[in-house]
Amino acid sequence: MNKLLKNCLESEDAIHKISKEINIDLQKAKELFAFISFYFPLLMKMELRIKKLNSKLKSKNKLIDEALKYFAHLNSDGKFLRGTLIALGYQNSGKKDDDFLDLSIAYETFQTAILIHDDAIDKGDKRRGKPTINSIYKDKFKNIEDNEHIANSLSVCIGDLGFYMANQFIVENYYNNPNLAPTLKYFNDIVMKTACGEFVDVYLPNERDIEDVEPLIMDIYKMKTAIYTVTGPYCLGMILAGDNDTKEIEKILMDIGVAYQIRDDIFGIYGKHSLKSVTTDIEEFKQTILYSYAIRTPYKDELLKYYGKKTGKKELEKVREIFINCGAKEYAENKMKKLFNKARKNIEKSNIKNKDALLGLMVYLEVSSK
Amino acid sequence: MNKLLKNCLESEDAIHKISKEINIDLQKAKELFAFISFYFPLLMKMELRIKKLNSKLKSKNKLIDEALKYFAHLNSDGKFLRGTLIALGYQNSGKKDDDFLDLSIAYETFQTAILIHDDAIDKGDKRRGKPTINSIYKDKFKNIEDNEHIANSLSVCIGDLGFYMANQFIVENYYNNPNLAPTLKYFNDIVMKTACGEFVDVYLPNERDIEDVEPLIMDIYKMKTAIYTVTGPYCLGMILAGDNDTKEIEKILMDIGVAYQIRDDIFGIYGKHSLKSVTTDIEEFKQTILYSYAIRTPYKDELLKYYGKKTGKKELEKVREIFINCGAKEYAENKMKKLFNKARKNIEKSNIKNKDALLGLMVYLEVSSK
Repeated sequence: MNKLLKNCLESEDAIHKISKEINIDLQKAKELFAFISFYFPLLMKMELRIKKLNSKLKSKNKLIDEALKYFAHLNSDGKFLRGTLIALGYQNSGKKDDDFLDLSIAYETFQTAILIHDDAIDKGDKRRGKPTINSIYKDKFKNIEDNEHIANSLSVCIGDLGFYMANQFIVENYYNNPNLAPTLKYFNDIVMKTACGEFVDVYLPNERDIEDVEPLIMDIYKMKTAIYTVTGPYCLGMILAGDNDTKEIEKILMDIGVAYQIRDDIFGIYGKHSLKSVTTDIEEFKQTILYSYAIRTPYKDELLKYYGKKTGKKELEKVREIFINCGAKEYAENKMKKLFNKARKNIEKSNIKNKDALLGLMVYLEVSSK
Repeated sequence: MNKLLKNCLESEDAIHKISKEINIDLQKAKELFAFISFYFPLLMKMELRIKKLNSKLKSKNKLIDEALKYFAHLNSDGKFLRGTLIALGYQNSGKKDDDFLDLSIAYETFQTAILIHDDAIDKGDKRRGKPTINSIYKDKFKNIEDNEHIANSLSVCIGDLGFYMANQFIVENYYNNPNLAPTLKYFNDIVMKTACGEFVDVYLPNERDIEDVEPLIMDIYKMKTAIYTVTGPYCLGMILAGDNDTKEIEKILMDIGVAYQIRDDIFGIYGKHSLKSVTTDIEEFKQTILYSYAIRTPYKDELLKYYGKKTGKKELEKVREIFINCGAKEYAENKMKKLFNKARKNIEKSNIKNKDALLGLMVYLEVSSK
């Protein structure tokens, strides 16, 4: 889609083309256009800036120097969606300057750090199309017993280092900024909530006997997706600009973040990518909103025949049917649509300045993995 | 020893008693007395303050609430040695107030967080005499395959959370302090170096073919012990007090920290505690200064017959003999003594205000695990 959007930028009838190609109405296409007109030029700036940061990651200690190279390699080619939200929040104050850029870069670096921990936890092999840190060291120590644990342990250390590189980048670049303390306070809070969300996300698949699990799932959605990805960065940008009036916008963006995660979970079962991408949630016993709805219906026992087990094409179709028949899919879709619509209405009647770009971001999130 | 020292505080002939009981000269006993007279009353204050912090660690999410309870339980009963160094550094500026206390508590909390990661890495069972976080969750999920990895993953999340609780405690308590930015900058640097030290420490036992390994070992000593335990906290206290002139004292304290680690490594082989405590370094192939000296002598091959292998009483005696015969023990002892003496001379001729207490800390480190 990104390529299409880039082409559109150069075209005169961009909005019509967007509307037609991804099948959304003209109003949404107009908003999406507003967002990408903001997003793409900024993306280039952020990519340049993070390259500069990465080029400075060096150490005289050869082992650390090597680790820093791996970190730098991962700390690039991100979508900078969160960095873009920081920019939107910052410029909502009326400021036109680029002083948010280093905060965006710091956020991206924090993201790289927590993804390194996440990959060690999930034993993931690929991230941003590149080998993960844990997979690199696992391979390096392939002749040693317990190499997976060693690789994960090294990932823990590199992640810890990355967190404090991000912190330091904020402190150094906003050393004399009067908004340093409130910015850090808000940032710390985002990271704490993200870590809590990750904790519950790791915990839940191993605790299968919680009856009313939806509140815990909603906690994950809020902490690990909505705050970390949407609300957090936008409001962080506001606070850097000196605007601490985040309460209203936090509520609005929380709805977008949760809706985005529900959408992700529906795609996690009904998506059209590889078989692996639509069987992972099932095999890993991921407790999504679909799951939590289904186990409160008479379909529970049938679902549990398949959930958490090896899943082929046949089993996938069975689970898909169960989620449809018990009403879970409809429930999730309605909840998602409701939240997106509520957010739209709230943005429209709010005093947010750059409404079209924010609505466009929402459209981007709604369509981005189609 | 702590009990003895506490009794001494109440005794009139304390210094003589200290000198006699732990067999050090009167001058050193006087210094040690100065240190403990500073240390013990402070210890009680810090214990009270951290209890208050811990009592606030609550969450509406029951899984996170449980994790916070485990964190709070671990985040107590520490020795607060680093917190005491912060106090010494802070009061070296001439300030008499207690405003360093929250920084000491934050440092202790950061320490708890990094120890949780360290325990997951080392698969440790006990910390501060209590079960580690990883061992608690390993037990909780004992019926689940891969429970060790799940427990370690949850420890990673809780450690991450702990890091940012420590950061947040600094930001919140020094929100309007003009020294917040330099304090955080220095703090971030300490944590980054500690993480790097931990990284090399995890890496080295798996890379046994480095010829000249002593520089890498010295890097661990500096980063993971000297900076994290001695230099870092003292200078952090100075900076909080507004004194940024840390260069000279950093050098002095670095020597103490390295000497302390060398002493620890000698005790790691020749200590008089349990057999387990003096065979761990050998079994884990820990590359200490003893090891790095020995492998550059003709005793290398003989050492490698035992190093990194299961170690009983007989094998331990063999390794002990090798380290003596090849000259490694003498080399390490001389290096340690030289560094302690150098630090003593440098402190004496420096313009540090509370010299006796700092020298007393050095004596404390010299004798503390006897």
